[in-house]
Amino acid sequence: MGIKTSEEYVERLKRMKPNVYIGGRLIGRDDPILERPTNTVRYTFDAAADPQFQQLVVTTSPFIGEEINRFTNIHGSIDDLLKKQEMIRALCHRVGGCIQRCMANDTINAMGVVSKEIDDAKGTSYHQHFLEFLKYYQKNDLVGSTSQSDVKGDRSKRPHQQADPDLYLRVVEKRKDGIVVRGAKGHITMGPYVDEHLVIPTRALTKEEGDWAVSFAIPADADGIKLISRVATPRPRIKLKAPYNEYGVVDSMVVFDDVFVPWERVFMCEEWEFAGRMALTFAGFHRHSYCGCKPAVTDVIMGATALVAEYNGVENAPHIRDEITELMIIAELVYASGIAASVKGHPTSSGIYEPAFIYSNTGRYLAGVNIYHEYDILTSVAGGLPSTLPFEEDWLNPETAPYLEKYIQRKPGISAEHQHRLFRFISDFSCSAASGWSQYAGVHGGGSPVMERIGIRNQYDLESKKDVVKYLAGIKD
Amino acid sequence: MGIKTSEEYVERLKRMKPNVYIGGRLIGRDDPILERPTNTVRYTFDAAADPQFQQLVVTTSPFIGEEINRFTNIHGSIDDLLKKQEMIRALCHRVGGCIQRCMANDTINAMGVVSKEIDDAKGTSYHQHFLEFLKYYQKNDLVGSTSQSDVKGDRSKRPHQQADPDLYLRVVEKRKDGIVVRGAKGHITMGPYVDEHLVIPTRALTKEEGDWAVSFAIPADADGIKLISRVATPRPRIKLKAPYNEYGVVDSMVVFDDVFVPWERVFMCEEWEFAGRMALTFAGFHRHSYCGCKPAVTDVIMGATALVAEYNGVENAPHIRDEITELMIIAELVYASGIAASVKGHPTSSGIYEPAFIYSNTGRYLAGVNIYHEYDILTSVAGGLPSTLPFEEDWLNPETAPYLEKYIQRKPGISAEHQHRLFRFISDFSCSAASGWSQYAGVHGGGSPVMERIGIRNQYDLESKKDVVKYLAGIKD
Amino acid sequence: MGIKTSEEYVERLKRMKPNVYIGGRLIGRDDPILERPTNTVRYTFDAAADPQFQQLVVTTSPFIGEEINRFTNIHGSIDDLLKKQEMIRALCHRVGGCIQRCMANDTINAMGVVSKEIDDAKGTSYHQHFLEFLKYYQKNDLVGSTSQSDVKGDRSKRPHQQADPDLYLRVVEKRKDGIVVRGAKGHITMGPYVDEHLVIPTRALTKEEGDWAVSFAIPADADGIKLISRVATPRPRIKLKAPYNEYGVVDSMVVFDDVFVPWERVFMCEEWEFAGRMALTFAGFHRHSYCGCKPAVTDVIMGATALVAEYNGVENAPHIRDEITELMIIAELVYASGIAASVKGHPTSSGIYEPAFIYSNTGRYLAGVNIYHEYDILTSVAGGLPSTLPFEEDWLNPETAPYLEKYIQRKPGISAEHQHRLFRFISDFSCSAASGWSQYAGVHGGGSPVMERIGIRNQYDLESKKDVVKYLAGIKD
Amino acid sequence: MGIKTSEEYVERLKRMKPNVYIGGRLIGRDDPILERPTNTVRYTFDAAADPQFQQLVVTTSPFIGEEINRFTNIHGSIDDLLKKQEMIRALCHRVGGCIQRCMANDTINAMGVVSKEIDDAKGTSYHQHFLEFLKYYQKNDLVGSTSQSDVKGDRSKRPHQQADPDLYLRVVEKRKDGIVVRGAKGHITMGPYVDEHLVIPTRALTKEEGDWAVSFAIPADADGIKLISRVATPRPRIKLKAPYNEYGVVDSMVVFDDVFVPWERVFMCEEWEFAGRMALTFAGFHRHSYCGCKPAVTDVIMGATALVAEYNGVENAPHIRDEITELMIIAELVYASGIAASVKGHPTSSGIYEPAFIYSNTGRYLAGVNIYHEYDILTSVAGGLPSTLPFEEDWLNPETAPYLEKYIQRKPGISAEHQHRLFRFISDFSCSAASGWSQYAGVHGGGSPVMERIGIRNQYDLESKKDVVKYLAGIKD
Repeated sequence: MGIKTSEEYVERLKRMKPNVYIGGRLIGRDDPILERPTNTVRYTFDAAADPQFQQLVVTTSPFIGEEINRFTNIHGSIDDLLKKQEMIRALCHRVGGCIQRCMANDTINAMGVVSKEIDDAKGTSYHQHFLEFLKYYQKNDLVGSTSQSDVKGDRSKRPHQQADPDLYLRVVEKRKDGIVVRGAKGHITMGPYVDEHLVIPTRALTKEEGDWAVSFAIPADADGIKLISRVATPRPRIKLKAPYNEYGVVDSMVVFDDVFVPWERVFMCEEWEFAGRMALTFAGFHRHSYCGCKPAVTDVIMGATALVAEYNGVENAPHIRDEITELMIIAELVYASGIAASVKGHPTSSGIYEPAFIYSNTGRYLAGVNIYHEYDILTSVAGGLPSTLPFEEDWLNPETAPYLEKYIQRKPGISAEHQHRLFRFISDFSCSAASGWSQYAGVHGGGSPVMERIGIRNQYDLESKKDVVKYLAGIKD
Repeated sequence: MGIKTSEEYVERLKRMKPNVYIGGRLIGRDDPILERPTNTVRYTFDAAADPQFQQLVVTTSPFIGEEINRFTNIHGSIDDLLKKQEMIRALCHRVGGCIQRCMANDTINAMGVVSKEIDDAKGTSYHQHFLEFLKYYQKNDLVGSTSQSDVKGDRSKRPHQQADPDLYLRVVEKRKDGIVVRGAKGHITMGPYVDEHLVIPTRALTKEEGDWAVSFAIPADADGIKLISRVATPRPRIKLKAPYNEYGVVDSMVVFDDVFVPWERVFMCEEWEFAGRMALTFAGFHRHSYCGCKPAVTDVIMGATALVAEYNGVENAPHIRDEITELMIIAELVYASGIAASVKGHPTSSGIYEPAFIYSNTGRYLAGVNIYHEYDILTSVAGGLPSTLPFEEDWLNPETAPYLEKYIQRKPGISAEHQHRLFRFISDFSCSAASGWSQYAGVHGGGSPVMERIGIRNQYDLESKKDVVKYLAGIKD
Repeated sequence: MGIKTSEEYVERLKRMKPNVYIGGRLIGRDDPILERPTNTVRYTFDAAADPQFQQLVVTTSPFIGEEINRFTNIHGSIDDLLKKQEMIRALCHRVGGCIQRCMANDTINAMGVVSKEIDDAKGTSYHQHFLEFLKYYQKNDLVGSTSQSDVKGDRSKRPHQQADPDLYLRVVEKRKDGIVVRGAKGHITMGPYVDEHLVIPTRALTKEEGDWAVSFAIPADADGIKLISRVATPRPRIKLKAPYNEYGVVDSMVVFDDVFVPWERVFMCEEWEFAGRMALTFAGFHRHSYCGCKPAVTDVIMGATALVAEYNGVENAPHIRDEITELMIIAELVYASGIAASVKGHPTSSGIYEPAFIYSNTGRYLAGVNIYHEYDILTSVAGGLPSTLPFEEDWLNPETAPYLEKYIQRKPGISAEHQHRLFRFISDFSCSAASGWSQYAGVHGGGSPVMERIGIRNQYDLESKKDVVKYLAGIKD
Repeated sequence: MGIKTSEEYVERLKRMKPNVYIGGRLIGRDDPILERPTNTVRYTFDAAADPQFQQLVVTTSPFIGEEINRFTNIHGSIDDLLKKQEMIRALCHRVGGCIQRCMANDTINAMGVVSKEIDDAKGTSYHQHFLEFLKYYQKNDLVGSTSQSDVKGDRSKRPHQQADPDLYLRVVEKRKDGIVVRGAKGHITMGPYVDEHLVIPTRALTKEEGDWAVSFAIPADADGIKLISRVATPRPRIKLKAPYNEYGVVDSMVVFDDVFVPWERVFMCEEWEFAGRMALTFAGFHRHSYCGCKPAVTDVIMGATALVAEYNGVENAPHIRDEITELMIIAELVYASGIAASVKGHPTSSGIYEPAFIYSNTGRYLAGVNIYHEYDILTSVAGGLPSTLPFEEDWLNPETAPYLEKYIQRKPGISAEHQHRLFRFISDFSCSAASGWSQYAGVHGGGSPVMERIGIRNQYDLESKKDVVKYLAGIKD
């Protein structure tokens, strides 16, 4: 059955070879520091068994003829695209932010689309490799990273112009049975708790850059792979336990120190003409996913803003209602753009449905340019307390607790504990190292707004708009 | 056949009794001052016969079993909603702005929805009246105004609190055969060139305000109706003819000086509980239409900006490309919101499909808050010439024409005439009395942004968002 | 005495040779079409005799030892700079917008500064020419245009690369007694009602472009000058007279068809290294003036917004108060930037005080990016009526007047006439050809925002800010 | 001598009674957790001895006839106001953010102004108390907190309406020798490392609220005072030491548990009519200080953005130059507003110069609404690395360091260490708990933007702007 449990997932992680470095230590995948980040992905397994979410999360694969977790699904219809977006919004609500596992889904769909296009053009057999891998992936309900962003060196130079050619991941050797790759992928989310690294190119490439045109899937603990990692989690709680504080994230620099990849796991090798297509196809799928997750983040900000306004007794102040309305508008315009992307989607040569990337881009763009603005709204309405709230220890100290409980009282009928819980949540959510991570992710995850601007204008039929004006102005070329 | 020609439409207008006042004169509907505004509506008839637009404009009515113009259509499906939006964008491109006739379409759909709901609740027979009127309207391919906005008097008071009760249109007499109404509707677009006035309430009403709860359809030249009108058109051209300058618009104060309406034309009378529903239902349909027309206006601004950048030789300047991209994003987010409104639409008790108003509102809102910003972009890129361009007469004066032609030269290969045509178009479009009208319409037409904000927050399920945060923060009520 | 009357000014205009073309006609300077624009400049003379404004407008010239109008003043102190800004704001209030005459003041100051710098560097005697001209200018209380903007042809090419070298004004002949110039200056405000054209370069030039490096003063009706002009005024009133409608503006293409300029009127000729300095010095002075006039425009928009809110009975609605506050903030930040420019000003080698251009630029920038936004605020609060208000003739027509007066009633205690006056003012101010002109001027006058951005970053000491960060980060180069 | 050293300051702190609680512990003021926050204030002493800053920091007091640190100065002129602003910007550069000590300066100036006004109106002798306290404060170069913000309870209720009257600090007993106060002040910066708490009211009060109208100065370790505190510092460094990481901040809830204050330390007691004046006068001074510190914060963001662009090799990309220019504009407009506040300042009855609060407000407002936007710019240009940068330990681990150094290489000529230093600085500055604090402070410190909006509109002469429009429109009341 293509549906596994979170326990099975954790068991798989434990069996992997240690290649994760955090804070100067080489750690096993059962190290406590990974527990909360891993919980986020665990939740995607648990949701498949939860009656409230099951109908969104469980679907059936025509490839293996079994029920699967939608995070491993290949989109066969517009409805699949609509459902993915809906599922992401719903699940992000439960972990208070990025559900993480959508990335791999977007990557396998992109690999499926482009491997077929390469085969069509070049007579290669990457798509067959891909389909075999897909079946394995679905049957085992695997989790993948998206290892895309190269470290990129000097941004004013192309890959083949870098002082060190490894600054973009590349093929250093082609053997009969496979290839050897070297380089590093940066900012790779989930690295220490995935089964597989799904590797795709960062950008469009030129003729001289065949060595950098490479895509493949590789077990996360394969020889030569090292994950140098940074963890971001909300502050842990002592007694005031809350679901939000049970989740987290890890980003890694994934080093490929001459890693061997067998041919059956390779989906592109030297076909530089398709590097840009694969990079942008992943981006197009992933920005569509953002049209699900970013409204969820806005929902959390909106809920927190509305609740703190209520707890402060100012929920009817016009400027506060306006701020909350602003959040509604941002959330729903991003979501609407994702819906439009789905509805205007179309099948590719592989049969995989691809959303209309223009609307993936406009939605992700709007989200990206507003993330800091949204935090600003929450901060404005919450007041200064999230930044000056004494630590939980002081609420447990009998010398100070009575003062804190006395002086946090606000609206009658809301207990000191509820006030405390809410402000601590807002503090953790918006005034912590974790919120810094979330702000950066909101800008850069899936491509920063400047990338969407480029995506939009490159795809846009501007000439037809000039023609409208030529007609109206009586200009006949 | 439910498809008429523009000539038949104009003939109908000519036969009407004169009750139009403009500039101190009582005029006939064949007065030249109305020609260009009338052209806009004529175009909606011509488009039905144009192979390029026919498949969008012509549909079939289940009510009369004939082909009709989509502007008289009642939405029977999500696809109808999607097609309406698409048609509006396409046709607005051809007249360089508001196609006007969508308003009546939105009104008849709202009348259809709400008359049924009143009947369901009250046992009245308004919906039957409506259906009979609809068949007549479709068979004759009629044109209607939307007579909604009351003049409203003191905005801080309700209708029944006004010093003069006529400041909101009201029923002053109920007879066996019909009702008599008095008051005035303001800012009514198309008044002098419609067949029928379609009257609906402005706002939600209270128990004391039954007299103001009234909806009906009435021939535009019925006794007691007077249209005091203001015309807005681009500057007329002498020799440099251009399609844009052939269109225009008229707004009227429509005075109802004790006008009799027979019962079979009445769709609401005293059911104050439904006044708000009808006002908002029209708004919901009409803001959905805005998700089609406003992207078209943005398309024109975008095309003009792109073309003038090209003619100036600066189309690749990064800040200019960014401005144009901004226009793409606005246009497509508004359009996407309309698509989402359609896709999330649902049938009402009448069988008429209603879009998801939340997305009608977010789309219209985004358009409304950006219209001045879009003009700003065009102005910024066009430079000062549209505001200082000598009048056409000076281009025809042999003493001055050679200087003007010499000194307007810009990018090689673009003739002086083309430069002149483009800058004159931009001048007429963005630096004229007509552009003032268009800016005001962009803000207020269909309800200003502040109305959409209210619409959005009133419909929004904010509690569920608070619940998301309560869950995450561990707050259990 | 260096103070003349508006009558003397008008007499001077009448004596000039006709070289003004508007609407296909060659007209005299006493043509009625010029009356309202001329009134604006007349007002600067009248204000010097008005006790309310005298202490701002009248000052004493050390050059001629007489009282002069401040519009002909050379800044000898920081206080002069502060006073100029204050005067401009005060006078713009009385004409409802651009007072126009500041441009010439900014130009003579720039000519004074740079002619001295050229002399210092090159041993020329331009500054002596300038001082003689200045005395004549001050003694006669003259009015000048700023003839700066070349028509510029292909924007992607430099002056010497244009297909037609005349697309930037240039010296075509140097004689013993003077020079001959050819070309055209575009968008030149006040052309038909100035005494002198004050000509300066548009931009920085290169070695090959000495012929284009030219600055001089020339009587407005000199042989070879032709003014092809476009007039912008509010709609004229029939009976509802109002000060606002008595003013206007004319912009001209000023054609120099081989115009002779005697050496004593030449302030730069071939010193290309100083072309940019003169262009930017004028800009620096003029953007400082904008820090006075633009707050005045915002004041008018603010006053109109506040008054219409009051007349509508919604002046206490929170979102309206917020909009008005937004206008206060814009007005005062722009004004503050002008004050900072004055206070941080410094004397140049000529002894003329120059404001700190960085603050001229930041103030003008903020104004420029907000002008459309400000119109948006007025439009939003005014509602649709300014765009649909029936023409004045219909208010004079006894058949329609009673309806209009009945239905325009709003807040009790505000007469129909006052309501009518206010809405007609707002209509003329914000929904007319004149408002289109004002929007364009608000963006481009004195240099568009993109020019200020360039000005700011070119003058800014960014390295010192990098050094702050290097220190904090412990980076030692 | 009124200038003390930082060592003397630290010695004073050590001698105080322990009443500081952090993280569940009662600590001494020499606890290591306070070291970095204390360093910030220490720097204000060190700067007085630093030749680079001495002329800004050292001034002479007419009250004690000695040299003093400007942070203890009373403004006797416009120049004093200009210098204070300049000093703050310069010193904030050295600690990478808030210099903290300006608050007490703003408070003593406000106390001085308002104590005199109370005496003038009521015949009290608070100003004499104040002057004596001032001399002591200046002679000893003391450091004060500003204990203003009450915890405020239910925001929809006034102080005397709260369920618990202590939710605003109040006088619970008046004795012959002094008063006893109870309550708590929230968000009090610097609490654990000041000499004195300077207490002022939060807001305007009504007749019933005399008990809440109280202002005084009290030693920081007086009986009954408890400081429940939260510390915010950049992440500490192991080996990669950097000045930025040596500073920090502490905010406290300052509990007044029946604290006795002798009359000679009381500056207001029961004069409720002056509570608002004192609150707003402090705000007016403090927002003026913000016009110095906030540009400094923007300078740091600007320098970091420019430097990371340079290190990434993209400093000439147009969109990046535009972002940096945006930062220049914000910084200088805020600074200009402070200059205008100073220049338009005036002496109060006490002789103390007060800035024009309208410009204090506009400057602080612009800063407040942009702080998140500025972080957004830095984040956008820096890319994702600050959020995913492996911890310092991994750079010290020989197994991982070589990979990190290899793959962080960017622009040739910039060493791996410099890259590392810069990205770690940006990470600490913008993606950490400290940055969360800084964002909250940027919004709320000195009063959030909504407070400045209120301040601006309450002080603004809006009627004169309506009069401008009445004149222009011909409306004669």
